[in-house]
Amino acid sequence: MKRKYSAIAVIFGSCADRYVLQGYTPRRDFDQMLEDARQVPGITGIEVIGGWHINDENMHARVKQIADAGFQLAGVIPEIWANPKWGWGTFASTDPGIRREAIERVKVAMDLAASTGCNHVSPWFGHDGWDYIFQMDYLKAYDWIIEGLTECADHNPKVKISVEFKPKEPRTHILVSNTAKTLLLINEVNRPNVGINLDTGHANMGYETLAECVALMKRFGNKLFHLHLNDNYRYWDDDMIPGSVHTLEWLEFFWWLDRTGYDGWFSLDVFAFREKDKVAVARESIAWLEALSAAAERLPSAELEAVFQSGDAMAAQRILRKALLG
Amino acid sequence: MKRKYSAIAVIFGSCADRYVLQGYTPRRDFDQMLEDARQVPGITGIEVIGGWHINDENMHARVKQIADAGFQLAGVIPEIWANPKWGWGTFASTDPGIRREAIERVKVAMDLAASTGCNHVSPWFGHDGWDYIFQMDYLKAYDWIIEGLTECADHNPKVKISVEFKPKEPRTHILVSNTAKTLLLINEVNRPNVGINLDTGHANMGYETLAECVALMKRFGNKLFHLHLNDNYRYWDDDMIPGSVHTLEWLEFFWWLDRTGYDGWFSLDVFAFREKDKVAVARESIAWLEALSAAAERLPSAELEAVFQSGDAMAAQRILRKALLG
Amino acid sequence: MKRKYSAIAVIFGSCADRYVLQGYTPRRDFDQMLEDARQVPGITGIEVIGGWHINDENMHARVKQIADAGFQLAGVIPEIWANPKWGWGTFASTDPGIRREAIERVKVAMDLAASTGCNHVSPWFGHDGWDYIFQMDYLKAYDWIIEGLTECADHNPKVKISVEFKPKEPRTHILVSNTAKTLLLINEVNRPNVGINLDTGHANMGYETLAECVALMKRFGNKLFHLHLNDNYRYWDDDMIPGSVHTLEWLEFFWWLDRTGYDGWFSLDVFAFREKDKVAVARESIAWLEALSAAAERLPSAELEAVFQSGDAMAAQRILRKALLG
Amino acid sequence: MKRKYSAIAVIFGSCADRYVLQGYTPRRDFDQMLEDARQVPGITGIEVIGGWHINDENMHARVKQIADAGFQLAGVIPEIWANPKWGWGTFASTDPGIRREAIERVKVAMDLAASTGCNHVSPWFGHDGWDYIFQMDYLKAYDWIIEGLTECADHNPKVKISVEFKPKEPRTHILVSNTAKTLLLINEVNRPNVGINLDTGHANMGYETLAECVALMKRFGNKLFHLHLNDNYRYWDDDMIPGSVHTLEWLEFFWWLDRTGYDGWFSLDVFAFREKDKVAVARESIAWLEALSAAAERLPSAELEAVFQSGDAMAAQRILRKALLG
Repeated sequence: MKRKYSAIAVIFGSCADRYVLQGYTPRRDFDQMLEDARQVPGITGIEVIGGWHINDENMHARVKQIADAGFQLAGVIPEIWANPKWGWGTFASTDPGIRREAIERVKVAMDLAASTGCNHVSPWFGHDGWDYIFQMDYLKAYDWIIEGLTECADHNPKVKISVEFKPKEPRTHILVSNTAKTLLLINEVNRPNVGINLDTGHANMGYETLAECVALMKRFGNKLFHLHLNDNYRYWDDDMIPGSVHTLEWLEFFWWLDRTGYDGWFSLDVFAFREKDKVAVARESIAWLEALSAAAERLPSAELEAVFQSGDAMAAQRILRKALLG
Repeated sequence: MKRKYSAIAVIFGSCADRYVLQGYTPRRDFDQMLEDARQVPGITGIEVIGGWHINDENMHARVKQIADAGFQLAGVIPEIWANPKWGWGTFASTDPGIRREAIERVKVAMDLAASTGCNHVSPWFGHDGWDYIFQMDYLKAYDWIIEGLTECADHNPKVKISVEFKPKEPRTHILVSNTAKTLLLINEVNRPNVGINLDTGHANMGYETLAECVALMKRFGNKLFHLHLNDNYRYWDDDMIPGSVHTLEWLEFFWWLDRTGYDGWFSLDVFAFREKDKVAVARESIAWLEALSAAAERLPSAELEAVFQSGDAMAAQRILRKALLG
Repeated sequence: MKRKYSAIAVIFGSCADRYVLQGYTPRRDFDQMLEDARQVPGITGIEVIGGWHINDENMHARVKQIADAGFQLAGVIPEIWANPKWGWGTFASTDPGIRREAIERVKVAMDLAASTGCNHVSPWFGHDGWDYIFQMDYLKAYDWIIEGLTECADHNPKVKISVEFKPKEPRTHILVSNTAKTLLLINEVNRPNVGINLDTGHANMGYETLAECVALMKRFGNKLFHLHLNDNYRYWDDDMIPGSVHTLEWLEFFWWLDRTGYDGWFSLDVFAFREKDKVAVARESIAWLEALSAAAERLPSAELEAVFQSGDAMAAQRILRKALLG
Repeated sequence: MKRKYSAIAVIFGSCADRYVLQGYTPRRDFDQMLEDARQVPGITGIEVIGGWHINDENMHARVKQIADAGFQLAGVIPEIWANPKWGWGTFASTDPGIRREAIERVKVAMDLAASTGCNHVSPWFGHDGWDYIFQMDYLKAYDWIIEGLTECADHNPKVKISVEFKPKEPRTHILVSNTAKTLLLINEVNRPNVGINLDTGHANMGYETLAECVALMKRFGNKLFHLHLNDNYRYWDDDMIPGSVHTLEWLEFFWWLDRTGYDGWFSLDVFAFREKDKVAVARESIAWLEALSAAAERLPSAELEAVFQSGDAMAAQRILRKALLG
């Protein structure tokens, strides 16, 4: 097991949706979630939500608690998407007060990340977008996103900011939507500490191929900073366990991660609405990741490079089949 | 305004989703929602959620309150989708206790509907389905849905049961998923009081054409009992105002409703997450429906019948353009 | 290898599309395609296109040729989709002459199928549908499809007619579109010799789950007569090799085929546009099918039945993982 | 009629697909197509396919013919997608000979465009991509596309090169797939004469919002050079007449084109498979464009700018409804 696996703490919590607002299973507090994480062999990092799990007051205690439980802090996710005040946008809100507040929220997360030594935050602009046409001045929105990220980047160049994109949900259209558009925006920001957090399910939703996302981020600035892992049926962010739908695609994904030298976290981001035992979900996720990773490592790279030259898809399929099924 | 418009009461309430669980706008109680509905010219009916808005104790007061506000009761929607206990299924749950409870819940809604004279309930089996493969014995599930509906149908043949289908959400796959499958199931039930509540957005999600849904229900048992109206971008149940995306398609839809003699309710079912003024949403929805309905009525039916014979899509487009834009 | 594999002859031919009309690879005649099929271990049946590969004149010679090559005739596909005259519909054309011609074409295919002993034809109504709204009188179309199929069914009750559905392409909307709608239509025809040819890719396009299609056809008339096998990315009929995209789903599919007692052909229907060696495509397809089938047979059925009772998706995933990856 | 409308010549030709290879309607030669175009009021430009309609020998005669018919030459589309030799890629082919040939083909188109004064070519890299995973070395492919475009750009800086993107078809995945990725690539090319040809249908397929595409190209280099107009149902490149599906979205599109100062061609690119009268298709297309354009011009811009500030989607819908329906 050479890969560094982590989990967002909330995957051990309850999941709710717009129909079952109280959640399908009982709520769990941070202590319980951390205890759950300890039951999952292979997980060595924890991501926390800044503003929920960690804040100025509890920071040092939290970090000690996480370390005592045997984990590294893998990242701080600024909470700029759960409070209704963010519902009409954050960095690209038309309200200067909200923009300021959201930027400050990210900076505070950066300070926490710096103080705790994890030096990594991952903002997601899920409410910056539109539901209906004619609802957004796109030009202004780009500028605001770029300005906000630039200000954050300069706030502390030692803290990595990995921007998470998504095509839709909760907005019908989110502005920072796919790999290429995120690269366009952050390369305009043009700071070495601003990169991308690739949520594999979000890429799936946009009909992106995971391995190609990795290549694109490599080519345009070496910008893959972090990974959030889950799978789905492509139409929505189903947040299922990795590999459960697009099984084979994960082999190409792992192979390209290795080829391009990715050495960051492999962080679980599943949303197991109806699974009562979240520890079982995380274990099964890690087991799939390890099995697919092992299959990827069995792939004969020289033969695959030859396929790249010939473009012979059947040769590729034969190689995949043998690596997967022996 | 010849069409009978109604609204599900909750369209005037707050909307939450899995990120903003407390809701984007403040909660409103039933009295406030009813008051809101009065501000919307054209709406003459109200649908309520059985178990939430109406129950055995408040039934008579509720009906009086609704009538005093100037509305008819358009239908009772049994609450079999909001409590976590339903999360693993209702009529098709593998737990006989839950199946029994869900069936009883629908029967109670039927009793309420009978007592109040509206004689219409509309169950939705949103949790009966699967997220992952190998999670459901489909054969048993069909039988349980059919048995449950049969029992309900026979409970009171005077109360119409309009089944609402949906392809996905909250399950990644819902069993009762589209027009044809619902017809298969209810025609096996084979009771005159069991039909379909067509949610236009749910049909959109399944790449169905609204007018064709109307025709299919006409042909296979005259089963269109009720309408829930909203629009979306086809990938998800965005619950947007009617006509805001698939504008032209609504002309064909109205025309076929008239052609097949539909005389039921046109009930608003929008989910205006970020719209602070829900009355404005309902007003705009009615305005769109009226405008599109008027355009549909301007359509020269004899010319359209000629198009059916020729299959000349350009002739159809010309007719639509003139009816819409003059 | 217990499953009966066959191939549509044309999978060994050239593939063209609307851009490369002459085809990506050289054309091959029937003799060559048959010779190719012999190079694929495991294939024991051949499907032919009635009107192209087989006709009244060459019928006996063809059947002898196919038998001499070591194959059974697995089915005759009536050509009612390649000639431009069918472009505006066949059984549901508004032109009575075309309707008659298409029905006769199917009957001729039935006669061929009867004479040769294969007793199986598989019509596909790819042009019966609409591109634009208001282009079709859906009610008439249902009746014409039902009438045509009834006439064919009664033409020779010993010949099985397996109707192939598809949601779109070449029409933007095809009338006979998914499992449930096909069941509705053929159960109105109500003849024991009329059933369904499930094209797995066509089901994928409609967000259907393969195993559930099998269950639905079992429940509503035991109507699964034939299989056309391929995979795709769900948005279009990519006609890729089976299992190359939705790998895991094929395990559930095989398991349900066995559970419901399917004993018909497993017929390859891939469209390998850019693969120069079609024999390699067929071999790789069979290899994947055998590998997935073997994994399906390793599944512990008693444990899966227990999952059906608990709905525990993680238990199902664990079983799948072990069956697939050991 | 202030907009400059043009048409790709082949919209007046026959349309074929992978089933009806000979085409749904009779073939027409260039003279006939040009004659057809003259029957369409409003069209003042013609796009030709370089290598088919125009070549070194017929160049001067063609230009004279087009001018004599009353048209401007709106662009030359290099034929790098119809010959089977391009099937495995062009600029990103792994075969250096094919890469060279494709680049030369574009340069020849540029020379033709320069000689005739239209100074505009529009290459489309439809075969540069992958069908299966592990089929392409994405990193090499980016470099080759960038190198090829750079070489072409420098070949004649006076000729504009508008790159047309598309997410899929004929490949299941095309490398140059959406607005943002095309901007990333051409901004790496970094030549003022390299921009984008926005095919509205291709953007739809990628769940892009047309107006937002316009804004994005404005913001990142002012790169909108040309437009190909058609509509579809989002899952495939149906090439339907503009506005026939996403009617309202075209109002936002026109408004943003005007807002950002687009003054290029509005070129029809419909593929009317089953429409026998292609002149009627073009006329109806122009009529829709004019009607929608007029509605866009009726939009009260100050009110819309206020909506941008408030984000009030209902206000936007009200404005749209009034502009469209009065």
